[in-house]
Amino acid sequence: MDKVKVYIDENKDRFISELFELLRIPSISAQSEHREDMVKCAEHLAVALMKAGADHAEVYPTAGNPVVYAEKIVSPEAKTVLVYGHYDVMPVDPREEWRTEPFEPQILDGRIWDRGADDDKGQSFMHIKAFEAMCQTNSLPCNVKFMLEGEEEIGSANLYGFCEEYRDMLKSDIILVSDTSMISMQTPSITCGLRGLTYMEVTVTGPNKDLHSGLFGGAVANPANVLTRLVASLTDGNGRITIPGFYDKVRNLTDAERRAFNEAPFSIEDYKSALDIDDVEGEAGYTTIERTGIRPSLDVNGIWGGYTEEGTKTVIPARAHAKISMRLVPDQDFEEIAVLFEKHFRNIAPKSVKVDVKFLHGGAPYVSPTDMAAYRAAEKAVEESFGKKPLPFYSGGSIPIISGFERILGVKSLLLGFGLSEDAIHSPNESYGLEQFDKGLQTIPLFYKYFSQM
Amino acid sequence: MDKVKVYIDENKDRFISELFELLRIPSISAQSEHREDMVKCAEHLAVALMKAGADHAEVYPTAGNPVVYAEKIVSPEAKTVLVYGHYDVMPVDPREEWRTEPFEPQILDGRIWDRGADDDKGQSFMHIKAFEAMCQTNSLPCNVKFMLEGEEEIGSANLYGFCEEYRDMLKSDIILVSDTSMISMQTPSITCGLRGLTYMEVTVTGPNKDLHSGLFGGAVANPANVLTRLVASLTDGNGRITIPGFYDKVRNLTDAERRAFNEAPFSIEDYKSALDIDDVEGEAGYTTIERTGIRPSLDVNGIWGGYTEEGTKTVIPARAHAKISMRLVPDQDFEEIAVLFEKHFRNIAPKSVKVDVKFLHGGAPYVSPTDMAAYRAAEKAVEESFGKKPLPFYSGGSIPIISGFERILGVKSLLLGFGLSEDAIHSPNESYGLEQFDKGLQTIPLFYKYFSQM
Repeated sequence: MDKVKVYIDENKDRFISELFELLRIPSISAQSEHREDMVKCAEHLAVALMKAGADHAEVYPTAGNPVVYAEKIVSPEAKTVLVYGHYDVMPVDPREEWRTEPFEPQILDGRIWDRGADDDKGQSFMHIKAFEAMCQTNSLPCNVKFMLEGEEEIGSANLYGFCEEYRDMLKSDIILVSDTSMISMQTPSITCGLRGLTYMEVTVTGPNKDLHSGLFGGAVANPANVLTRLVASLTDGNGRITIPGFYDKVRNLTDAERRAFNEAPFSIEDYKSALDIDDVEGEAGYTTIERTGIRPSLDVNGIWGGYTEEGTKTVIPARAHAKISMRLVPDQDFEEIAVLFEKHFRNIAPKSVKVDVKFLHGGAPYVSPTDMAAYRAAEKAVEESFGKKPLPFYSGGSIPIISGFERILGVKSLLLGFGLSEDAIHSPNESYGLEQFDKGLQTIPLFYKYFSQM
Repeated sequence: MDKVKVYIDENKDRFISELFELLRIPSISAQSEHREDMVKCAEHLAVALMKAGADHAEVYPTAGNPVVYAEKIVSPEAKTVLVYGHYDVMPVDPREEWRTEPFEPQILDGRIWDRGADDDKGQSFMHIKAFEAMCQTNSLPCNVKFMLEGEEEIGSANLYGFCEEYRDMLKSDIILVSDTSMISMQTPSITCGLRGLTYMEVTVTGPNKDLHSGLFGGAVANPANVLTRLVASLTDGNGRITIPGFYDKVRNLTDAERRAFNEAPFSIEDYKSALDIDDVEGEAGYTTIERTGIRPSLDVNGIWGGYTEEGTKTVIPARAHAKISMRLVPDQDFEEIAVLFEKHFRNIAPKSVKVDVKFLHGGAPYVSPTDMAAYRAAEKAVEESFGKKPLPFYSGGSIPIISGFERILGVKSLLLGFGLSEDAIHSPNESYGLEQFDKGLQTIPLFYKYFSQM
């Protein structure tokens, strides 16, 4: 492994400047104006994978954004690792809160600042460079396949079909994913649970046009007022979600499991002060780490209606909208939750308005077993690179496709992410620490080594 | 009066093309980018008033948008009418719902389509042209003064000071205002009541940045969720406003007054079908016309927060906002209501968020007596031009400055508006019927005639 380490050390500056090229492509999957950037980004990655040492790399078009596939087969007898990542990124709004240009990467305070610096270009790119270091030093102990998609942030709609179609090509012993975070650099962790997701959009429509709020105010249902009532009623005073049937399939942990779960190092005071909040808020009867790790949630991700610009306009808007997503835990079914949500939302709407409810995307929760070989290999690799045995960690986030992989490909995923909560993924001023990038580069080859030996 | 009628008939086409010039100026007072358009509009009106026959006309700068003043004094012994109107207009959003360009007037189906076609450029311009017809035919029986402002839609902040400063210049026997509507062309009416207004903006702030809704969802107060709860709680299940003290000064009508009030012709079925709604909604125990005429209301005029563009973004927004206005009735005090609102909103906010509450603008409710000379003169004028005696009508709208006029200038206002509800003021596709414009041109000279004789 020394050759690999030397190669990485000698080429680190080039790795960063190559990552910057990738980060400059504004590959926002949610916005159709970036359609061409997605293709550009995919092609860029295919070239990068070939240069790194892949036998071949290809850009597969889909009905949406392309999938990049590459592989290097060292031996038919060797184990095979399928690296999954995504090159699409979140939108950048609110744009005005960025301190740097979101697609013009910069290094400040030992961190790379850019949309996608962590999620997931930075983390995916570590894999390409670790792979390069092993290829170029003839140290690759196993077969490696790459599958990098461009629709993770919008639900991976076309990757399910891709997996069905190329099931044979994608054959592997483990799917390796770096799209999650660790507790901290001092407390490394491996993610063993992900929440599922059901993402909805609702529209409340009242009168057939915007109305003067003086002439009509008090006599006509105001869609914006009604929307606040309906959305507010989706959770009760105990932070419980009121949709009938919502909790029916939630798996409840035993007291012992809950105690073990709460042993992870966590300071509520640090948490509040990092976020500048005076109090946390959530489901009564659960701790903060339980609320994100093992309990479902419901959040308004966006709300809009009426006059939202400077000054005043005395108007009753004809309609008002909200984007609402729910994080799910085992064994909730994201499609069933979408149906329950829609039914409930229609039920509670008054006759004075019409409501439209759309399902935008979703995915199932996932639990990664801690007793599988890949987990044990990762545990050894992290312990060696971080000097500390990693803890198993339940993330509140979702990677909907992960449960799809198991269903379609029959392969488990290992969630070995190097993010930190301060990376501010999905927020303005996303960043990724150079130290995290380094630790990833060190850990990945060790994982290959230990996994191949098992 | 025949000469006046002939002059109007012969010049009507020119009047319309001159109105179009005025309508083409995008004088949106709420948006600072239109600051120069406001000045342009004011200067345009001063020129128009001089051409119409004013002795002199002047544009008075203020700390905000200018006030246009003009006068023609026929005799120191004659009665004096002060015509008030406004040349500023509402914003045009939602822009995509306009079927024509909002500042490119067109005549279609016997109506002028443009932002400001009615409110209040169209209605103000009728006064300039009626004045011209009387001046050019030597028929003006009284002194006429014009005061046209550019800040009515944003609360007339600088007109109060203007009235204080030019109290002598503005001396008059009645203030004549065409900035309201009639029940219908078949049921002409004169507005004798206006609601007051208190317009607030609230911001709910949670964490110090947008957060990933997976990693934090369920554990941190989401400002958008909290905002829906707070706003929803401002009204109860009976449509009553829950702010403590809100109703304390509301003047309750006697049963006899309420019966008289409800005698105005009104069809709930026509009302619902014109708005395409299946049901009305409002304060329990009151009819629809009572709800807008004699009862206060609370409306969300705008709400926004988080991701509101195409697709999905899994974010907990750092903050969420709402513009909320309340319409007030005698004897509610708009400043006191602002204080009660702010106090209540702060009280109900949970410790998990911070709230910011701003008062944007307001005005007192107004009641115009039906036994004053000007009202009786207007009644005769409308009866002659429409062939039907007008009904007294309580509008739900507000013209905050009207109560200011009485307080500062000691003069009552007559609210002789020619608008109709189908004019869609403040909405996309505002329009003004050519027939309404004609009736206004006919009625105004008759009002001057009868008022001068009283």
